[in-house]
Amino acid sequence: MANSGAAGIEEEDTVATTGSNAAPRVAVAGVSGYAGGELARLLLRHPRLAGVRPAFLGRAAESETKSTAWLEDLHPQLGVPGTAQSNPVHPFSWEWLVDSGIEFLFLATPHEQSREWAPEALKRGIKVIDLSGAWRLKDAKNREVYHLHDADPTQAAKLQDEAVYGCPELHRKEIRTARLVANPGCYPTSVILALAPLVQAGLVDLSHEIICDSKSGVSGAGKAPSAKTHFMYAADNLSAYAVFGHRHTGELFEQLHLNPDQIQFTPHLLPIPRGILSTIYLRLKTATTPEAVHQILTNFYSGSPMVRVHPAQQLPQIQHIVRTNFCDVGFALAKDGKRLIMVSCLDNLLKGAAGQAVQNLNVMCGWAEEEGLL
Amino acid sequence: MANSGAAGIEEEDTVATTGSNAAPRVAVAGVSGYAGGELARLLLRHPRLAGVRPAFLGRAAESETKSTAWLEDLHPQLGVPGTAQSNPVHPFSWEWLVDSGIEFLFLATPHEQSREWAPEALKRGIKVIDLSGAWRLKDAKNREVYHLHDADPTQAAKLQDEAVYGCPELHRKEIRTARLVANPGCYPTSVILALAPLVQAGLVDLSHEIICDSKSGVSGAGKAPSAKTHFMYAADNLSAYAVFGHRHTGELFEQLHLNPDQIQFTPHLLPIPRGILSTIYLRLKTATTPEAVHQILTNFYSGSPMVRVHPAQQLPQIQHIVRTNFCDVGFALAKDGKRLIMVSCLDNLLKGAAGQAVQNLNVMCGWAEEEGLL
Amino acid sequence: MANSGAAGIEEEDTVATTGSNAAPRVAVAGVSGYAGGELARLLLRHPRLAGVRPAFLGRAAESETKSTAWLEDLHPQLGVPGTAQSNPVHPFSWEWLVDSGIEFLFLATPHEQSREWAPEALKRGIKVIDLSGAWRLKDAKNREVYHLHDADPTQAAKLQDEAVYGCPELHRKEIRTARLVANPGCYPTSVILALAPLVQAGLVDLSHEIICDSKSGVSGAGKAPSAKTHFMYAADNLSAYAVFGHRHTGELFEQLHLNPDQIQFTPHLLPIPRGILSTIYLRLKTATTPEAVHQILTNFYSGSPMVRVHPAQQLPQIQHIVRTNFCDVGFALAKDGKRLIMVSCLDNLLKGAAGQAVQNLNVMCGWAEEEGLL
Amino acid sequence: MANSGAAGIEEEDTVATTGSNAAPRVAVAGVSGYAGGELARLLLRHPRLAGVRPAFLGRAAESETKSTAWLEDLHPQLGVPGTAQSNPVHPFSWEWLVDSGIEFLFLATPHEQSREWAPEALKRGIKVIDLSGAWRLKDAKNREVYHLHDADPTQAAKLQDEAVYGCPELHRKEIRTARLVANPGCYPTSVILALAPLVQAGLVDLSHEIICDSKSGVSGAGKAPSAKTHFMYAADNLSAYAVFGHRHTGELFEQLHLNPDQIQFTPHLLPIPRGILSTIYLRLKTATTPEAVHQILTNFYSGSPMVRVHPAQQLPQIQHIVRTNFCDVGFALAKDGKRLIMVSCLDNLLKGAAGQAVQNLNVMCGWAEEEGLL
Repeated sequence: MANSGAAGIEEEDTVATTGSNAAPRVAVAGVSGYAGGELARLLLRHPRLAGVRPAFLGRAAESETKSTAWLEDLHPQLGVPGTAQSNPVHPFSWEWLVDSGIEFLFLATPHEQSREWAPEALKRGIKVIDLSGAWRLKDAKNREVYHLHDADPTQAAKLQDEAVYGCPELHRKEIRTARLVANPGCYPTSVILALAPLVQAGLVDLSHEIICDSKSGVSGAGKAPSAKTHFMYAADNLSAYAVFGHRHTGELFEQLHLNPDQIQFTPHLLPIPRGILSTIYLRLKTATTPEAVHQILTNFYSGSPMVRVHPAQQLPQIQHIVRTNFCDVGFALAKDGKRLIMVSCLDNLLKGAAGQAVQNLNVMCGWAEEEGLL
Repeated sequence: MANSGAAGIEEEDTVATTGSNAAPRVAVAGVSGYAGGELARLLLRHPRLAGVRPAFLGRAAESETKSTAWLEDLHPQLGVPGTAQSNPVHPFSWEWLVDSGIEFLFLATPHEQSREWAPEALKRGIKVIDLSGAWRLKDAKNREVYHLHDADPTQAAKLQDEAVYGCPELHRKEIRTARLVANPGCYPTSVILALAPLVQAGLVDLSHEIICDSKSGVSGAGKAPSAKTHFMYAADNLSAYAVFGHRHTGELFEQLHLNPDQIQFTPHLLPIPRGILSTIYLRLKTATTPEAVHQILTNFYSGSPMVRVHPAQQLPQIQHIVRTNFCDVGFALAKDGKRLIMVSCLDNLLKGAAGQAVQNLNVMCGWAEEEGLL
Repeated sequence: MANSGAAGIEEEDTVATTGSNAAPRVAVAGVSGYAGGELARLLLRHPRLAGVRPAFLGRAAESETKSTAWLEDLHPQLGVPGTAQSNPVHPFSWEWLVDSGIEFLFLATPHEQSREWAPEALKRGIKVIDLSGAWRLKDAKNREVYHLHDADPTQAAKLQDEAVYGCPELHRKEIRTARLVANPGCYPTSVILALAPLVQAGLVDLSHEIICDSKSGVSGAGKAPSAKTHFMYAADNLSAYAVFGHRHTGELFEQLHLNPDQIQFTPHLLPIPRGILSTIYLRLKTATTPEAVHQILTNFYSGSPMVRVHPAQQLPQIQHIVRTNFCDVGFALAKDGKRLIMVSCLDNLLKGAAGQAVQNLNVMCGWAEEEGLL
Repeated sequence: MANSGAAGIEEEDTVATTGSNAAPRVAVAGVSGYAGGELARLLLRHPRLAGVRPAFLGRAAESETKSTAWLEDLHPQLGVPGTAQSNPVHPFSWEWLVDSGIEFLFLATPHEQSREWAPEALKRGIKVIDLSGAWRLKDAKNREVYHLHDADPTQAAKLQDEAVYGCPELHRKEIRTARLVANPGCYPTSVILALAPLVQAGLVDLSHEIICDSKSGVSGAGKAPSAKTHFMYAADNLSAYAVFGHRHTGELFEQLHLNPDQIQFTPHLLPIPRGILSTIYLRLKTATTPEAVHQILTNFYSGSPMVRVHPAQQLPQIQHIVRTNFCDVGFALAKDGKRLIMVSCLDNLLKGAAGQAVQNLNVMCGWAEEEGLL
């Protein structure tokens, strides 16, 4: 039996294989963007999906796929278009999805579209992993930044309640049985994974505001050409943006249970293709040792294969996580034992988007969380 | 007299100062682009223009200057907008130019506009240094790539005859008295300066085609956002383009007196902001020594301060000429004494555009050629 | 029948399970460099090696492994050091290799070491895939550039005769039974794969020298810090080097059966981490159509899954092949039907080094050539 | 009255021609590094030094100048080596300096050398502008990070008292008459210029620590090749370093009169050649309006031509200050009127080193502060 992997995986197999355990049929809508391309790459080589080809769709019925009908035309790194091994990109169609027996639909679509399509998918019995910001925020006030309009507000509110924030390290259990997973934002993933262990342990002195200074590569700005994504603007430059108002901030409030006086977040645009580094400044309630901080982190992430806790006082950097699904977390503690700097790094297209989405699929299917991601 | 400079310059002053020798009034039309910005920078610190502020205009009557009325808003590296030292950008207006007593007009405008405006300027007694491709090519066939339409074809043909190709190293004498200078393309400057000495000396075996493999930074593609200038496309990439059809090729034919069978030119897009490197492959008629080749080059450029001939077998590189007006020329000769590789480098926005335009102004005004350019 | 695609794999599978075909034990010596790291990554996720962990060794008995005993310390993108999933790096030892039952040894070592170690490995019945230049060149004159000293010149000469140049697209059959495979240089791979089809077909007019203008990312210069690999030197720069004397040139002569008057090769250092683009200028003997050229290329590579022939007049670029094992080949033919520009691109660490090495392993083991490489 | 602009310059001109005010003779020791090169470039085109060529020296008596005797060999962008216009680089020699009548000596040397040489220069009546960290810190405890050893501790202590921290915006008056100016560090310049106005006005709530998150280009790491300056390490990467212990921190304490509990500073290495951006987080004592904050900044810098205060809520970015001597300062104030983010940008080789050194020379000579720097 090919592609089987480690022994532990096979055990889970046994658990999982209550009959239904043939490879599920998955589809990606919105495959032309950067995250969509990474999703395609990951799903195509996922060992659990080896038997059944994933399906790829455009963002619209007429679709971006008119001129290029092959995934490999949109993302040439993936293979040779127009051959037996290549993958067609279909115009978006609910009928097609249902007829094809799709069980999981990844939405790599703009948030307006995700807000509209997720209910439609669930109605048809298709589970959704949404990569947009449409379903991440429980608090309507936090959601305002997205200007979402719901055709059926009652149903939308219900679904919003049901939606699970797709951070497996925090919500593994709920994700397992979720129908609608809201894949986290790239920035929040880096900040939340750094802060959650200490905040949940009640060790952070919240009378001192937590400062999150984040820096992201240009792929985070999307594929559409603009003045800010012009090579001459982005290269050899650094700029802060969306200060006091980035729409990812609400995820920090909700996931860390903090209010706007307790944490602030400032993003910067780095002159690199991909990667996020967040430098986070906080103060502990009581003087602590580096060993104790390290212990809290390693305990918290003991069952989480995609988070790597660095040794005390050793900080992660972007080059080590680019093109991986790891989130690396490290820290430096001042001599006073109270002032703490945490640094976390991840690839904004993987752990910050497509990789985490596949990690969620793994959890939803009862597979090992890191499968297809190493 | 402040800012006077070397003794030699003062001598030329004497020659030049036949009364009219107050600083001339110069204007730049189309100051918002990359070349326009570099022109502004050079003219503002040009010692010969110290007394009289250059004028800056937009590309149109309504102009791009509506929202930003200051040069320093368009090009923040140049200073502080809105102060006594800052420079207004005027809407384009012939009346304004005439009333302001403008003597020299730099056109950093698209070629269609340059084709239309140059005759208008000359009609009003204003000399023109045009940075576009509109007036560079004598042969109508070569000019076809620009799809130019002349309101008055007879007048245009006359002007085309009169226009001088603004390569001071080749046409210094004609430029001195020219009314209309067609500033060369960035790629052709790099190729022509490498090849002219040996081709003119009749040493090149033209039965073997000359191959020009050129590479340019992204600023050469202009300021408009597009799929190809997106950071994610240009960074970490290299691509050839416009193979067998780049519109700069005609300049090579005309300036080097070669036909299309004797030279070919292939440009590539480099993942850097600025700089061009051309690698040129040719064969000499008879076996020659490196010393002899070096001598021909240094003789040719003995009176040309902006071309630096490298020692034999030492090749120039982009980092040494970026942000200078130098064109560096070097070569390697094979052991057979016949196969020759020439490498030339320049900054596409300076020696390839704005710097060469100022060099032409210097020549037209009888100043030292390198003034304001070191 | 190898290279046959999906169906063929299943057939081979059947063969594979007949006992002898358990996963072979492979080892990599010199795992700390860039190519060594890529080899490790590829081998660790190779489906045919799933059962048996590859072994990793340093470059010396004392080894670079003293301070870092884990592969994941040397290459953090590969995983978490010091866990059950992580991979130890052993000091180099013949005894250890023999005791571990190693059947294939990849040498990612300097050429002097490869020249010394390959005979030692073969003596012990271990097959060798050498990534250095030590065994690539049959002609002693071409080999001079490496200054190799053989302890036993007679044996070395014999082995040199036996060694197979590891370009599967040209020497698939010989590689299958080879004991010593000399993995090609990165530059030659890009040039040879572009030129071989037309040269072998006898269509190239060799009275006109073939010009190969190649450009490579900085990883090609190795991991050792130097003035030329300093970020301030390499970034925003381009430079030609080793003109008329790069030691990869001999591979072109030998593999394409050309003499030094018929082809020349000039490498340049690109300001990107990885990727090679070669622009190749040649002339055909008789006027040909783009369709005919395209047909020759596609025929030649019909059984070669790792070479992608572009449609006529569409040129490949680096971004499409980075981090893949593809070599993309495209061309533009002038209107005269004779002047031809070929462009080929590959990732210098994959198809130009580690990927091609694994491709050779696949061939030697009778597996599908692209296994573990898509 | 300095800093007054055009009119003031002419007045000074008049003063200048009264005999004693001929151009002073200046020398640069340590001209081979990045800051040394920028110093040479600025001094060579400084209008006040037009008459007298600056002198350039190596770092040692034997000197780095043995093989390259020309400034233009070390820094090819500056001109043509070996011609009448080029500049020799002399071995370092006190005798030579005295004989040449040098009045000002720039030390672009390592801090140990600057600590030793500054007293030697003063002893000979030569004023010193030191670009190293040797003389910046008054508090011996802060100075410990440099491990300085003084041959004559009493004399060194006296000189340390006398040395003036060369930030013209804070210490213009003292610099005017100083014999020894300690040119500030690049990071501290960016932080101090952002913070000084509000801290001095007593508006900052110091019970909340000020957080300085700074990012610098690679030239800040110096010219020596190392693992961290390798292109493959620095490119496409970001890393924090020297957390809680960067040796520039003492300058912040001393210049802003803050203690280590009130401010912390974390530097990061950016994948760009040059430029620093500091994001600074602080809290105001009482709720304030953006207009009020803006007013305080513009008042503070009204006589300071090299600091540009951005409009309220508009943040500076690196591209606007690279290759200028400007420090751009901007801020965003939260709706609560208390939480303030300041962003400042400068070019680490100019306002952060060579440019500021020339600015100090201007002040010491009674010239307009921005002369030769625009």
